[in-house]
Amino acid sequence: METNRYQTGLARLNELDPHAAEHLKESFKSVCPELADFIIAFPFGEVLSRDGLDYQTRELATISALTAMGHCQPQLASHIKGALHIGCQPQQIVEVILQMAVYAGFPAAINGMTVAKSVFEELGIQTGEAQ
Amino acid sequence: METNRYQTGLARLNELDPHAAEHLKESFKSVCPELADFIIAFPFGEVLSRDGLDYQTRELATISALTAMGHCQPQLASHIKGALHIGCQPQQIVEVILQMAVYAGFPAAINGMTVAKSVFEELGIQTGEAQ
Amino acid sequence: METNRYQTGLARLNELDPHAAEHLKESFKSVCPELADFIIAFPFGEVLSRDGLDYQTRELATISALTAMGHCQPQLASHIKGALHIGCQPQQIVEVILQMAVYAGFPAAINGMTVAKSVFEELGIQTGEAQ
Amino acid sequence: METNRYQTGLARLNELDPHAAEHLKESFKSVCPELADFIIAFPFGEVLSRDGLDYQTRELATISALTAMGHCQPQLASHIKGALHIGCQPQQIVEVILQMAVYAGFPAAINGMTVAKSVFEELGIQTGEAQ
Amino acid sequence: METNRYQTGLARLNELDPHAAEHLKESFKSVCPELADFIIAFPFGEVLSRDGLDYQTRELATISALTAMGHCQPQLASHIKGALHIGCQPQQIVEVILQMAVYAGFPAAINGMTVAKSVFEELGIQTGEAQ
Amino acid sequence: METNRYQTGLARLNELDPHAAEHLKESFKSVCPELADFIIAFPFGEVLSRDGLDYQTRELATISALTAMGHCQPQLASHIKGALHIGCQPQQIVEVILQMAVYAGFPAAINGMTVAKSVFEELGIQTGEAQ
Repeated sequence: METNRYQTGLARLNELDPHAAEHLKESFKSVCPELADFIIAFPFGEVLSRDGLDYQTRELATISALTAMGHCQPQLASHIKGALHIGCQPQQIVEVILQMAVYAGFPAAINGMTVAKSVFEELGIQTGEAQ
Repeated sequence: METNRYQTGLARLNELDPHAAEHLKESFKSVCPELADFIIAFPFGEVLSRDGLDYQTRELATISALTAMGHCQPQLASHIKGALHIGCQPQQIVEVILQMAVYAGFPAAINGMTVAKSVFEELGIQTGEAQ
Repeated sequence: METNRYQTGLARLNELDPHAAEHLKESFKSVCPELADFIIAFPFGEVLSRDGLDYQTRELATISALTAMGHCQPQLASHIKGALHIGCQPQQIVEVILQMAVYAGFPAAINGMTVAKSVFEELGIQTGEAQ
Repeated sequence: METNRYQTGLARLNELDPHAAEHLKESFKSVCPELADFIIAFPFGEVLSRDGLDYQTRELATISALTAMGHCQPQLASHIKGALHIGCQPQQIVEVILQMAVYAGFPAAINGMTVAKSVFEELGIQTGEAQ
Repeated sequence: METNRYQTGLARLNELDPHAAEHLKESFKSVCPELADFIIAFPFGEVLSRDGLDYQTRELATISALTAMGHCQPQLASHIKGALHIGCQPQQIVEVILQMAVYAGFPAAINGMTVAKSVFEELGIQTGEAQ
Repeated sequence: METNRYQTGLARLNELDPHAAEHLKESFKSVCPELADFIIAFPFGEVLSRDGLDYQTRELATISALTAMGHCQPQLASHIKGALHIGCQPQQIVEVILQMAVYAGFPAAINGMTVAKSVFEELGIQTGEAQ
């Protein structure tokens, strides 16, 4: 795999989570190491690193899609954490997930919000009322 | 949020489960309290409380959709319990889920039936053969 | 294919539409005649002809699932016609599709309602306001 | 339907397309006039008009979800037009759709881009190379 | 249920896993015994036992569909085990799942590969690098 | 875009259809030329050209996924043509689509078979009974 795309992707992924690349490589090493390489080189190295849309909006777009598709909860949790890490406000994430009730239905929005709640609790973030 | 829709929705939701509203509010209080309000006021207050279709058939329609979409198992469990609470027969619920094998495929029907089985076991309901 | 299931299914399908079986057979004769046989013998002969749920509710459950899944518009049109043919009220069909806005999102409900509108116009049925 | 939500929603929808409300009402008048009312009052009046996320980002989130879900092409075309109308740049829309290749697969991205291409051609917009 | 289809299906299912039929029957006995009968008689007795496509390719096609649909992980695990049992190579299974990144998006492929990894670990199979 | 992946992908795509690359480039030139480049370089250049699974089986896996997902009919038609072009037998394609009735439901299989029928008619192929 040529150096450039991979290095660009690695840098882009590191902005979301400096441990993600290592975790990805470790996860798939014994079954399909190319999957981690592909994720770094194509999504992060060629798509998410493009100009034309800022990274925060790209992450909100990803959170929208993952909430709407409904069957990608581990990825949704990772991208919520990553979005926070690059400066998305927790309230923006909540708004995007809530909005999915309109386009993908309430169950998708409820399940997405449950993922967000769990990430926020882990990070000590509160977007609603004080407990 | 205006009183009427919310009160109508609360009454409608209470028919399914008298603890559901409190549970919903508690679940999303720290992350997005409006989500619980929306669920009560729009789905329950404006849609599920409409005339033109009886509540039992509405719940069977919901069970169909949640089984077919496949990624909404927590909601499927709640609606199966709610459907039983308003008088749907366990066998009707089993039939609707089984029918989804035709429209959404066997895996969706199998996973839906597994949810139903777990709810029925919790409530001591048996629709098949004696163990 | 053994006679019983096929004959049961044919009778059940004929209740929805007396021309459907012939149309199905004609459609897939040159590419996969077994598909028409399967549809008659399994969905109609073994599932939709079961006891435990009346046929009208079964059709409303099918309309729910097809609206929610969103990629089955030819089947949705056929089942709306069939549901009317076995005595479902147009308003019940409208209510089930509208309810899908809650579970599968507004676009799925809008596209389902557009199919219903087109079927109702073909049949001279009006469920809303006079034009 | 109480005045406030409806009026708020109507104003919000008019920002996207001043003819959309009339078109929605006309479309569903004969089959289910409440669907148009619901769309104006709930999605536009209660969700898309909330604070916490700017309208342009909300539209990009909607375009993401509709592209990823794949079965909502009429709505995708409307929201692409609306997004342009409130100031989203064509290139941002292209980027969001392209990004869906990563999360929902290439066919979803290709079909979404085909919708964008058709909208852009209608409006004389070019985001790629000169013909 | 007539003997022939059921016996054919049972033999076909036994090729994948000699304990699967018993497990299926046990699972759904108390809630819907017909579901197990249907699975044996229709998918295995009438579809998967057809000529025209070898069984290994049929299992790879099933693994593709289950990975792409994304909400059928228990079935995906079973079919990966079954595919191995009838002689599919672990690397073929990995390739089919990896390919789904193209058609259903990276999250679906990642989640499918995680299921494969777990099955392979249980069976002591390694398709990537030595740990 | 580096030469190797692109050239590998172009050769791989040309095996399916020698006009596809030109058609892809023409289609997206005015809106997003990178989409065509990505399709050639990543799916065809890095995934579909991998060892470990023969090309015919890869195409049958793609046909399975596109039929099961249900919202990718233009891509399904292209891959059916491509599969025939690299030597898949028409009957194998029919079998894979028919099998999707089990995993994704009858409507998905019916709609997929309708696409196959249309491609086969265009090419003068008959897999069922003589007309």
